Amino acid sequence: MWFFVFDTIFIPYMISKAQVKHIRSLDSKKMRYDCKQFIVEGSKMVQELVKSNFQIVAIYGTKVWREEYLTSNEAAVEYFEITDADLRRISNFTTPNEVLAIVQLPDLPLAHEGGITLALDNIQDPGNLGSIIRIADWYGVSSVVCNTKSVDFFNHKVLQASMGSIFNVPCMTIDLRDYFLSQKERETYACVLNGDDIHTCPKISEGILVIGNESNGVSAELLELCSHRITIPKKGRAESLNAAVAAGIVCDVLI
Amino acid sequence: MWFFVFDTIFIPYMISKAQVKHIRSLDSKKMRYDCKQFIVEGSKMVQELVKSNFQIVAIYGTKVWREEYLTSNEAAVEYFEITDADLRRISNFTTPNEVLAIVQLPDLPLAHEGGITLALDNIQDPGNLGSIIRIADWYGVSSVVCNTKSVDFFNHKVLQASMGSIFNVPCMTIDLRDYFLSQKERETYACVLNGDDIHTCPKISEGILVIGNESNGVSAELLELCSHRITIPKKGRAESLNAAVAAGIVCDVLI
Repeated sequence: MWFFVFDTIFIPYMISKAQVKHIRSLDSKKMRYDCKQFIVEGSKMVQELVKSNFQIVAIYGTKVWREEYLTSNEAAVEYFEITDADLRRISNFTTPNEVLAIVQLPDLPLAHEGGITLALDNIQDPGNLGSIIRIADWYGVSSVVCNTKSVDFFNHKVLQASMGSIFNVPCMTIDLRDYFLSQKERETYACVLNGDDIHTCPKISEGILVIGNESNGVSAELLELCSHRITIPKKGRAESLNAAVAAGIVCDVLI
Repeated sequence: MWFFVFDTIFIPYMISKAQVKHIRSLDSKKMRYDCKQFIVEGSKMVQELVKSNFQIVAIYGTKVWREEYLTSNEAAVEYFEITDADLRRISNFTTPNEVLAIVQLPDLPLAHEGGITLALDNIQDPGNLGSIIRIADWYGVSSVVCNTKSVDFFNHKVLQASMGSIFNVPCMTIDLRDYFLSQKERETYACVLNGDDIHTCPKISEGILVIGNESNGVSAELLELCSHRITIPKKGRAESLNAAVAAGIVCDVLI
């Protein structure tokens, strides 16, 4: 005679071809905005996600991951236990890290609620954008805005480089010129190569810090709307600093 | 009757299979150190290279590139005009950028010649290492040293991220513990999460700044040899900053 202990038997959820296709399609920016969904991957990132206010559509992960990281309070989310083989089918990683979540794109207000805004003019490198979101989170920046030509906030490389800070700092893609015109009462500080030494500027608790494109800096059309031009003084020979490094130094000095 | 004007006829140099194999093999760290050679790619990088003291073994590039960028003084280097198809065969880039050079690995002295040294303990990301070399060049740092577990200085992604600064700052891979023991008379400043606020530290013109691994920070065995523990104060929520961003802030504050 046999006894079956059903609750110890792991019956994986089988992902359909259509689901694989949908999840993989969210790698494209157009699809993310059409479906209003994006992907968060990896154990650490999904742990930060479940603690955040972001709306989770579904989590696909291992049994071990759920048991270790989803508390009873958070277990209300739709969780599908899948096999490693299925995780590899839907993952962006060469070596998937236990879990992947589909998340609702946040619908953020554009209204200014005080504090410092980091404005990014045409940042192209996903690692730079992710690092800048992390800097914003470290220095308690209120929001990060970038123009439509920049790399997308919800690109998977940006999310990884942000190390979960994307869940703490409101990030919006907007027309920066319109935004600057709507925020005329605020001081704006553009990082350029021939402005005032940042070390001579007083600390600020309110205003917009503008970081330009990796190759071309802040565009002329935005520069004419900025009230201050600031520079990190050079002591050696390099032509410039990496955009994320410059953002970090400016935040450390001014905030 | 026909007249031939020979010097306007472009006869490309044909790269052999063995040459392609040799050049491609330099993508491996082991081969770079066995052959004492590395690869520099792209118009801007090779322009910086020809202005530097690095020993160039050969340059493979287009006729246009040579005419535009190699002055008569620099034209002493072995220059091979090749076709775009051959450039694609030897390049690391998806879209090769006009020129590729084979360069002798520099044989640098370990002796300390004063100033600031940046010591990197197990930096893994090539973009971070390249950005840190660029920071060192911007702040006039005397040398950058990293331990043997770090990503290699002559990895092609490190070189690209350094934006040519690799030619301006002496960079050495060494045993950091031995190095610290040999430099006992110098002050050493380790970046940690619970040290003294960097803004309370006086400026320095001499000493070793230690940046740790992206995930684990400065290792315990190096930390015990450091005379100061310094911290970039946090005003928000992120757990940490990117290693290159932290290096930039520390250099800006202390140098």
